[in-house]
Formats: sequence, C-alpha cells, structure tokens
Amino acid sequence: MDIYLVIAIFVGALLALGFAVIMAKRVLGFDEGTDKMKKISASIRSGANAYLKRQYTIVLIFFAVMFVILGAMAIFGLLTPYVPFAFATGGFFSGLSGFVGMKIATAANARTANACRTGLNKGLRVAFSAGSVMGFTVVGLGLLDISIWFTLLKYAFGLDPAGITSAMLTFGMGASSMALFARVGGGIFTKAADVGADLVGKVEAGIPEDDPRNPAVIADNVGDNVGDVAGMGADLYESYVGSVISCAALGVAAFTGNGDMQFKAMAVPMIMAALGILCSIIGTFFVRTGEKTEQKLLLKALSRGTNLAAILIAVLAFPLIYFILGAENWKMYFAVLAGLLAGVLIGKATEYFTSDTYKPTKNLAAKSETGSATIIIGGLGLGMLSTAIPIIIVGIAVLVAFFVSGGSIQSPNMGLYGIALAAVGMLSTLGITLATDAYGPVADNAGGIAEMSGLEHEVRERTDALDSLGNTTAATGKGFAIGSAALTALALIASYIEKVKEVGAAANVEAAAKADFSSFSVMNPLVLIGLFIGACLPFVFAALTMDAVGRAAQSVVIEVRRQFKNIKGLMEGKADPDYAKCVDMCSRSSLKEMILPTVIAIVVPVVVGLVLGFYGVVGMLAGATASGFLMAIFMSNSGGAWDNAKKYIEAGNHGGKGSDQHKAAVVGDTVGDPFKDTSGPSINILIKLLSMVSIVFAALVVQVHLFG
Amino acid sequence: MDIYLVIAIFVGALLALGFAVIMAKRVLGFDEGTDKMKKISASIRSGANAYLKRQYTIVLIFFAVMFVILGAMAIFGLLTPYVPFAFATGGFFSGLSGFVGMKIATAANARTANACRTGLNKGLRVAFSAGSVMGFTVVGLGLLDISIWFTLLKYAFGLDPAGITSAMLTFGMGASSMALFARVGGGIFTKAADVGADLVGKVEAGIPEDDPRNPAVIADNVGDNVGDVAGMGADLYESYVGSVISCAALGVAAFTGNGDMQFKAMAVPMIMAALGILCSIIGTFFVRTGEKTEQKLLLKALSRGTNLAAILIAVLAFPLIYFILGAENWKMYFAVLAGLLAGVLIGKATEYFTSDTYKPTKNLAAKSETGSATIIIGGLGLGMLSTAIPIIIVGIAVLVAFFVSGGSIQSPNMGLYGIALAAVGMLSTLGITLATDAYGPVADNAGGIAEMSGLEHEVRERTDALDSLGNTTAATGKGFAIGSAALTALALIASYIEKVKEVGAAANVEAAAKADFSSFSVMNPLVLIGLFIGACLPFVFAALTMDAVGRAAQSVVIEVRRQFKNIKGLMEGKADPDYAKCVDMCSRSSLKEMILPTVIAIVVPVVVGLVLGFYGVVGMLAGATASGFLMAIFMSNSGGAWDNAKKYIEAGNHGGKGSDQHKAAVVGDTVGDPFKDTSGPSINILIKLLSMVSIVFAALVVQVHLFG
Repeated sequence: MDIYLVIAIFVGALLALGFAVIMAKRVLGFDEGTDKMKKISASIRSGANAYLKRQYTIVLIFFAVMFVILGAMAIFGLLTPYVPFAFATGGFFSGLSGFVGMKIATAANARTANACRTGLNKGLRVAFSAGSVMGFTVVGLGLLDISIWFTLLKYAFGLDPAGITSAMLTFGMGASSMALFARVGGGIFTKAADVGADLVGKVEAGIPEDDPRNPAVIADNVGDNVGDVAGMGADLYESYVGSVISCAALGVAAFTGNGDMQFKAMAVPMIMAALGILCSIIGTFFVRTGEKTEQKLLLKALSRGTNLAAILIAVLAFPLIYFILGAENWKMYFAVLAGLLAGVLIGKATEYFTSDTYKPTKNLAAKSETGSATIIIGGLGLGMLSTAIPIIIVGIAVLVAFFVSGGSIQSPNMGLYGIALAAVGMLSTLGITLATDAYGPVADNAGGIAEMSGLEHEVRERTDALDSLGNTTAATGKGFAIGSAALTALALIASYIEKVKEVGAAANVEAAAKADFSSFSVMNPLVLIGLFIGACLPFVFAALTMDAVGRAAQSVVIEVRRQFKNIKGLMEGKADPDYAKCVDMCSRSSLKEMILPTVIAIVVPVVVGLVLGFYGVVGMLAGATASGFLMAIFMSNSGGAWDNAKKYIEAGNHGGKGSDQHKAAVVGDTVGDPFKDTSGPSINILIKLLSMVSIVFAALVVQVHLFG
Repeated sequence: MDIYLVIAIFVGALLALGFAVIMAKRVLGFDEGTDKMKKISASIRSGANAYLKRQYTIVLIFFAVMFVILGAMAIFGLLTPYVPFAFATGGFFSGLSGFVGMKIATAANARTANACRTGLNKGLRVAFSAGSVMGFTVVGLGLLDISIWFTLLKYAFGLDPAGITSAMLTFGMGASSMALFARVGGGIFTKAADVGADLVGKVEAGIPEDDPRNPAVIADNVGDNVGDVAGMGADLYESYVGSVISCAALGVAAFTGNGDMQFKAMAVPMIMAALGILCSIIGTFFVRTGEKTEQKLLLKALSRGTNLAAILIAVLAFPLIYFILGAENWKMYFAVLAGLLAGVLIGKATEYFTSDTYKPTKNLAAKSETGSATIIIGGLGLGMLSTAIPIIIVGIAVLVAFFVSGGSIQSPNMGLYGIALAAVGMLSTLGITLATDAYGPVADNAGGIAEMSGLEHEVRERTDALDSLGNTTAATGKGFAIGSAALTALALIASYIEKVKEVGAAANVEAAAKADFSSFSVMNPLVLIGLFIGACLPFVFAALTMDAVGRAAQSVVIEVRRQFKNIKGLMEGKADPDYAKCVDMCSRSSLKEMILPTVIAIVVPVVVGLVLGFYGVVGMLAGATASGFLMAIFMSNSGGAWDNAKKYIEAGNHGGKGSDQHKAAVVGDTVGDPFKDTSGPSINILIKLLSMVSIVFAALVVQVHLFG
C-alpha cells in the first residue's frame, strides 16, 4: 500500500488528539466559580478518581490472567505471538479513552455551572468543549492504535494482509473486554447511586434531587462521570475500532489473491475514519446558540454541527472509494451512504419513541393517570414495539450495502465488505456525535453543583435546559451505537468464518478448512442450538446486570438510611453527611457485580465452541446479534421514554410534580434506569465481544469439540 | 399402511371422546347448590356464551375471507383443492375444543363450589372431572380430525404420502389461526376484566376481590372461562395437532423413495397419540386426595396421575417404535424419551422460578420492601434469567433426538424426524396434563361463586387450596406448551423447506427445486435479514397484545367508575350493579383488539416471502422461533413469579395483606397479568402459525419475490 495512505491515517489520529488538547485547554481556561463549587467539584473528582483506580486494578488482574492464557495458547501454536500484546494494547487504549473523558468531565462540571451564571451560550460552550475532548480523544486514540499496529505488523514484522487483520482483531477483543467492564461497572455504580439516592432521599425523606443533605448525592454525581462518561468512552472506543478493523478484515477476504487490492481495501476504512475526524472538527465550529433555553433552538445548534459533518463525509467518501478501490468498485460508495443514513434514521426513530415532543411518550405519560402498573406495561410495550423500525432500517441498509457492493448469495464476500463499510460510514463522524453525547453528563453534573452550592435559580434553569437536550442527543448517540454494533457484529461473524477456514487449513481439519459463508445453515442442529443459546445470552446478561443494580442500590439505601438516622442535625443542615462512605459503597458493590457478567461473555463462546464446534459458534453469534440488537433497543427506548414521561409530568402535565401521577412516573423512571444506562448499552458491547472471543479461540475450537 | 393401524388411531380418538362424555355426565350429576349460586353461575355462563358467539362470528368472517383467498390460489394452481377445506376444518375443530371446554367449565364452577361444602376431595373430583372433559375433548377431536382427513386423503382421494401431509399441514394453519384469535381475544378479555376490576374495586373503592358489589366481578369470572379455558383449549388443540402432522410430514421426507416406510413413519406419531390417550385415561383413575388443604398433598394427588401416564407411555413407545419403524430404527425411541423428559424438566424449571416454595419467588417477594420499582425490576430480571435453563434443556433434547435418530450434518432428514418425534412424545399425554391444567380456572370460578354467594369460610378456603394448586399445574402445563412449540416450530421449518423444494420443482424454479436443509446459511443476507425480522416479531406481538390489554382495561375502569358513581345504593349493597354492561365492554374491546395481532401473524410471512423470497422466510421462521421461545418463557415466568410473590405476601409474609409491601406486589402482579395470560401464551401459537402460513403460501413466494 502506498505509504502516503499510512501517513494520512497517522495525520488524522494526531489531528484528533491535537484538537482534543486544544479543547481541553479551552475548558481549563474557564473559572471554577465559588469556593463551595470548587469543593463540591473536588469531591466528585476524587470519588471518580478513586473508583476508576480500583476498577482498573481489578481489570488489570483480569488482563494479566488473559495475557497468560493467550500467551500459553501462542506457545502451543494456537495463536500468533502478537495476539497477547495486541489484546493488552486494545484494553489499555480503551481504558485510557474512558479515563481522559472522566478527567475532563470532572474538570468541566463546576466550570459549566459557573459559565451558566453568565449565560446559556457560555455554558454550552464549556460543556460542549468538554464533550469534544472526549469525542476526539476516543477517535484519536482509536485511529492511533490502529495505525501503530498496522505499521508495526506490516513494516516491522512483514506480515501478509490476513496476518495483519488477524492480529488486529485481537486488540478489538482487548478493547471490548475493557469496554464491557467499564460499561457494566460504571453502569451499576451510577444507577445504584441514583436509585439509592432517589428511593431514600426523594421518596422517604422528601428532600429534592441533588440536595446536599442527601448522603448519596456526591455518589450520584460521581456515577454520571464513571458510568455515562468513562463507560461510554470505553464503549465507543470499542465500537469505533471494532468497525474499522472488522471492515479491514473483510476487505482482505473480499480481494483474496490480489495483495495490492487487499491493502487498499484495508486502507479505505482507516482513511474514511481520518477524513471523518476532519469533517467532525469542522462541524464543531458551527455549534453555538443564543440565550433562549428553548430545546428546539439548542438542538438546532448541535444539529448544525453534526449534520454538517455528516454531509461533508458523504461528499468526501465518494472520491475516497472511487480513487482507492477503483472505478469498477465505485458503487460501494452507496454502502457507505446507506450506513450513514441508517445511523441518522435509527437516531430519529429513537428520538420519536423517547422524546416527549412526540405521541408515544406523551401517551405513556397519560398512562400515569391509572397508576404505576399501567405506566410500566405501557413503557415495556413502547420499547418492544420500537424495535420494529430499526430492524427494518438495518435490514434495508444491509440489503443495499450487500448488493451494491457486488455481493451475491453464491459469492457473498464483496457484499460482506460492503456491510462492514456501512458500519464505518455510520461511525465516521463519531468525533462530533460523541461530543454532542458526552456533554450531557457534564451538564447534568453542573446542575447538581448549581443546586448543591445554592446558585441562583436561573443558573439551574440553564443547566437543566442543557441537560434535557443531552437526553435527546444521547438518544441519537445510542442510535449510532446500536446500529453500528449490529453491522459490526455481522462483519465480525464473517471474519470468524474466515478465521475458521484459515485455522482449519493450518490444522488439517477438513470440515473447517472447507467451511465458507454458505456452510452455516439454520437447519444444521448445531447452528440451530447455537442460535437458541446465542439469542438467550442478551436475556441472561440483562437479567444479571439488572439484578446487580438492584443489589447494589439496596446497599446504598441501607447506608443512606443509616446516615439519616445516626448523624444528628443532618436533616436540619447543621451537620454534613458522610459522602465518601456512599461513594465507597457504590464502588465496592459495582466492582463486585461487574465481574460475573463480563466473565460469562468470555467463557460462554469458548464453552459453546468446545461443545458444539464452530457451527455452534456461528449460530450463537447470529442469535446473539439478532436478539441483542432487539433487547438493546427495547431496553434503551423503554428507559428513555419513562425518563422523559416523568420529565413531561414534572413540566406541569397530568398533575405535575408531587401528584400521584408523578409518583407513578417515578416508578417507571426507576425501572428504566438500569434498562437504559446499565443493561441496554452493555448489550451492544456484549454482541461484539462474543465474536472477538470466538475469533481468538477459533484455532482451539476447530481442533477440540464434542459435536460437529 | 396396514389398515389396522388406521383403525387403532380411530379407536384412540373415540376412546378419548367417549371418556370425555362420561366425565361430563359425572360433572352434571352433581348439584349446583343454592339458588344464589345457580343464579351467579348462570350469569357467568350466559356472559361466556355471548362472548364466544360474537368471537366466533368475527372469526367466521376471517375464515370466509381466507377460504376465498385459498380457493382462488387453488384455482390458479398454487394450492391443491383440498387445502381450503382442510383449513376450514382445522379452524372448526379448534374452535369446537374451546367451546366444549368453556361449556363444561361454566357448568362445573357452581358444582365445584357446592361440592367443596361437603369436602375437599369431592371438590377436587368435580373440578378435575371438568378439566378431564376439556383435556380429552381436545385430544379426541384432534386425533379424530387427523384420522378422518388421513382416511379421506389416502383411501378416498388416493394421494401419495407427500400429498397427504401437505394437505394436512393446512388444517394446522386453520387450527393455529383459530387458536391465535381465541388466545389473544380471550386473553385480552380476561385481563381487561381482571385489571379493571382490581384497579377500581380493590384499589380505589377498597372492597375485596370477587365482591358482588363490583360491577366487573362477573366479567372477571367470564374472563377465566373464555381466556383460560376456551383460549387454552383452542391453543392446545393446535399444539397437539401441529406436533402430530409436522412429525408425519417429516417422516415422509425422512423415508423418501420408500412408500411403505413413509406410511409407517406417518402412522407412528398418530399411534403414539392414541396410546397416549389410553395412558392418560388410566392416569386419571389415580387422582384422588384426602381432606387436608396442604398444597403438597394435593399436588401429589395430581402428580400421581400425570407421572403414571408418562411412565406408561415411556414403556409403550418402545414396542411402538421397534415394531413399526423396524429394529434398525429402534434408537428413535430415545428421541421420544428425550422429548418426554424435556417437557417434564421444563415444567420443573418453570415451577422452580415461579413457585413461592423456592428461592427466586421468595427473593422477589422480599424486594417489595423497597417498593414497586424494585419488585418490577426483580421480576423482569427473574423472567429473563429463567430462559437459560429451558434453552439448554431444549438444546440437549434436540441434539439427542437428532443424533440418535441417525441425523447427520450432511443428511439431516432422519434427525429432523427424530426432533418431531420428541415433540409428539412431549405432548402424547396431553389428555391428562391438560386436565390438571384446565381444572384451575374451574376452581378459580368456584371460589368467586363461593365469595359472591356468601358461603361458609371453609368453602372458600378449600376452593383457594384448589385454585392455588392450579397455579402450579398451570406452570407445568406451560412448560409442555412452550417446549413442544419450539420443537414443533423446528419441525415446521423443515416441512417448509421440503415444501419449497416440491413447489420449486413443480414450477421449474431452479434455486427452490435445489434447496435443501443445507441451503439456508445465516451468512446469506436474505436469511440474515429474515432472522432479524423474525426475531423482532415476538417483541412487536407482545407489545401489541399488552397495549391492547391496557386499552381494554381502561374502558372497563371508566365503566366501573361510572357505575359506582351513578348507581345509588351500590356500595351499601342495596342495589345491583349492571354486570352485563361490563361483560359487554370487555367483549367489545377484546374483539376489536384481537384482530390486528392475528392479521400481522398472517400477513408478515407473506410479505417477507414476497420481498426476501424463501431464503428470507426460513430466516424469519428461525428467528421467530428462537426469540419467541425466549419471550414466551420470560413473560410467563415473570408473570407467574409476580403472582405468587403477591400470594406469598398475602399469606402473611413481609407485612401481609394491606401493607405497603403488598401494594408494591400488587403492582407487580398487575404488570404480570398480560405477561402471563395474554402475550406469553399467544407467542407459542404465533411461532407455529408463521410457519404454517409460510407453508401454505410457499408456491406463491417461490414464484414471486423481489430478492433471492
């Protein structure tokens, strides 16, 4: 491959990181406000730091164990020697993305609150800059990781294309493992603190949200940073990297026998990512607003940036495809376009089902009139029904991407590369979409600080306006995350099959060596049973994470009750609660609870492989992708709709704050918390991690299995 | 085929129907009790009659339309001329099964209450006899329908084996359509009445359950009969018939080229059903109990009967397989055994997750301590987690059945026949398992009548004991229903592929004619997109049925509130409420609401076929089976656990009746109502109906489709 292409990729990565540094400096240039604000922000910061430190320690142990296992497998010839190192770097960069995001978010919260004292636009600027740091760090680190490994594997170790992508897929597994820990652990932390604070503070003691007398209030704010920021950062790092490398792998498969084209096909997703960074940076300059707190105006301010970036990449992708893949493959451009469009449309569908400006959430709010049971049934129904449109959108995108790229049922390789390109297209402008997403928790924290430090009423109003907008942009962000997860997972299944063929040939296992994309009929009982088991995994995973939130919240409830009872003068505001104790409780329980679900995600694919062979694994991956996609959308949308139905009632509809209807809606929102912030988003990672693990263990499974 | 085999099948069918008549006479020989009891029973009866009459009228219109469509297709050569008639008879017998069940249940309710005045054993005898009428009517009519059609097609029209099973699969579609209408309509009726009665009566007006002052109380009791009895009757008729005919169809495919063996392979499931009837009748004679109301003793009384029947069929199946299929196929016996065992184990797993004698439901009840949100989260988690064990059980059963029957990945036909045999084995003793299941609603009604007519306290205690046991046996029944649905659905997918091959050859469509069980790789984008859409269907279906219950309940709530307000002296017991109005409201709304979900189940497979071709259809069926199985178990078990957690609290735990914990548990139970009695059980039917519709429209889809 032309060395200029490699340089372009490096430039893209460094551009993103440079921009992130500039944005970070800008954020730090703002003032943190009053001493009280500084103090509160410092408590949140130290809580988040302490949690991440402990989380990373546990994850480190896990990575050490896996490193040894993978090392042993490499020694026995089941893996190449690069794999353990690639695995470790994927985990490292994923964790680093989350860490940087958390750092900047906890630095920006008080600054955003303080900026909101001057005006809304200034507040938005600080929060959005903080979000940009996170967004561009994720894409910058992702692309840097990819380009360094690519350079090493190609130029230093001289591997062939298949060897390069094979090693690179392993750092995807590292990134996904880290992301799952971060999402699950952070998700449990944030919701345990949130639910615990609400149940005792709001419901039992009757004090408002973010009241400084509530012992769990700092933990709640810490949770936003370790869950919604650090967890999301690790998560999207994983999505971004996963989509690019799985696309590269399928590019290699699509052009088998043509080394030059293989390198070009690998380069396309990487260059597209680099171009996406450029477009995203341009987009950020168009985000600004006036002083009106109307949602519509604020949303317009953000959309201007994201839309511009999307349009720019849609334009630039054409010459990219045309000149790199050649005139005969220009139609693959439509695959990119299909992916880009699908991401936007899924985001719109999510918005329709979860925003209180549309009918579904309004109707849901009306169900509060007959109590909590009906609003629960309504929300569950809404979430389940909302799966239909994204399924159809993804279906159409897959069809388009497959057939325009020259795929056919007899020879699907080019088509599968097209599907992977669609995923990369969808995520190419992640820099700015993530910025608009990550600024939400910053605004949320700013609101908390404004409340706790007793700032003027209009400050809280402004932070609320920013926060509420964050809910909408989060919905769009989720659309991209889940849509790309489905497409990437499909690409990874294809990569798995390629891998089976490769290791089958190497190990002289005939069935595996002869396997191709047509070998996995659903009527093969091994595929079928795998499909059933795979479809079951998201259900089990959701159950485990929800239960974990329940247990962790329980421990917080008990601690908060204890403090209310034992600390004299707390309710009168004369004594301070022991915030650190609650943070510690949340850390302890969330770290304990994050282990089982993640270990399951890694152990099950290996066990299924050892019992049902590679046929069973492919079935499992397909089943998990389909059911995981559905469960993730169902849970995210149910949760989002309950949240916004509650906010809609709080805005004065159906009896307003404090009414019975409001109480019913609070029950819905509480059920929705683990749905939308713990289980739902983790499933995105789960479905990809299952594939990555399967790929890494393919050589073992092909040689050792009970059936098949 | 030996004519004696055909005669044996007829004898089995007539035996069952004769036994049902004897049992019915026995029930009618008991006394209905006081005038008040007679009056109440008569109101319930007339309400149920009126509802079914209206339901059947609507269904008749649907069947007329479908008859015309199928007739037109037959004229254009897309179907054989028998199909429309087979379709109609399937619907007729399925409806008849439900109707007979409802008739006897509404005749037995007051008689059971009256018998409970004498003693528990007598009460059990009446209720169980009524359940037996239903159980044996379902299997008797099912087998009669099968044997008549078989005789006609073979001896009168002289069709070959493939032609026979092909026509017979259509009456499966008729039965499934009817069953879906009955389950959905009845399920909406019963839960709308239940939720409506509870929300206004129990929660708002503060009067006890089954209080005669509640205007919806008769509707509630009518609901038990039209939903839990008539709906279940139609449902299990469909399951029973579906498993037998899909097995026959795969038997024909397995022994292609050997006409004699084909007939024998068709006969095996039918004879097994006939033997199962014999074993079930013997089993019923061993059901009796003493006078203690302890659950354990009562359960033992019923289990003695069902266990004996299962052991008998396990013994008799061996000579059946050995002598009919020949010594070389004796191992298929293990397929039958695997199915039988899987049914029992899934039932046990269901019991473990939903009975309050085990940890999961006890833990769930404890979650009421922190309010309704935590009990909802806990129940959802419990249901999702509970899917894992049945998935593994079914997986093992499929593996065993497939491989012992001589299936291999290259040539799976024999193995698929084995899977179908497992389904038949599971349902062979349906006569008695359904009897133990169907007696529950009778006991429930009896309790209502005892309450409303002010009988002695111990009568209610006895009916409660019977009713509560009914919850446990219902769990076991659900295990069989869902387990057999999964296996039957798999068999039907195989039948669909056989059909595609057949019509493909006839219409000279090469891809279809060449299709076999290995042609449907999950990496074919059409199969894959079909898989996604299919997996989505149970989510959409569940959402629609839950919403329907919500809307229907809303209308009941408004009507009950109106009556409480407008009828003077109602609360003081001086004036009677307008029961009929509530029954009418429930009928109206449930009939309106049942149409859309059923129509979707019929239209979607045709549309998917026309767009994505037969590849898409197979993907859709596999996806719907996997996700439907999971959703059905999830929803049934969550609902069952909430119900029993509430009962556990009512028994005096966690604060008992009237406490805040109890209120939280009532919210859980209300959410669980549509879960376990409307959406969950309908999904079983949905997944089979999708396959049946696909089979009927195969000739059209093979010739006309956009992709593939």
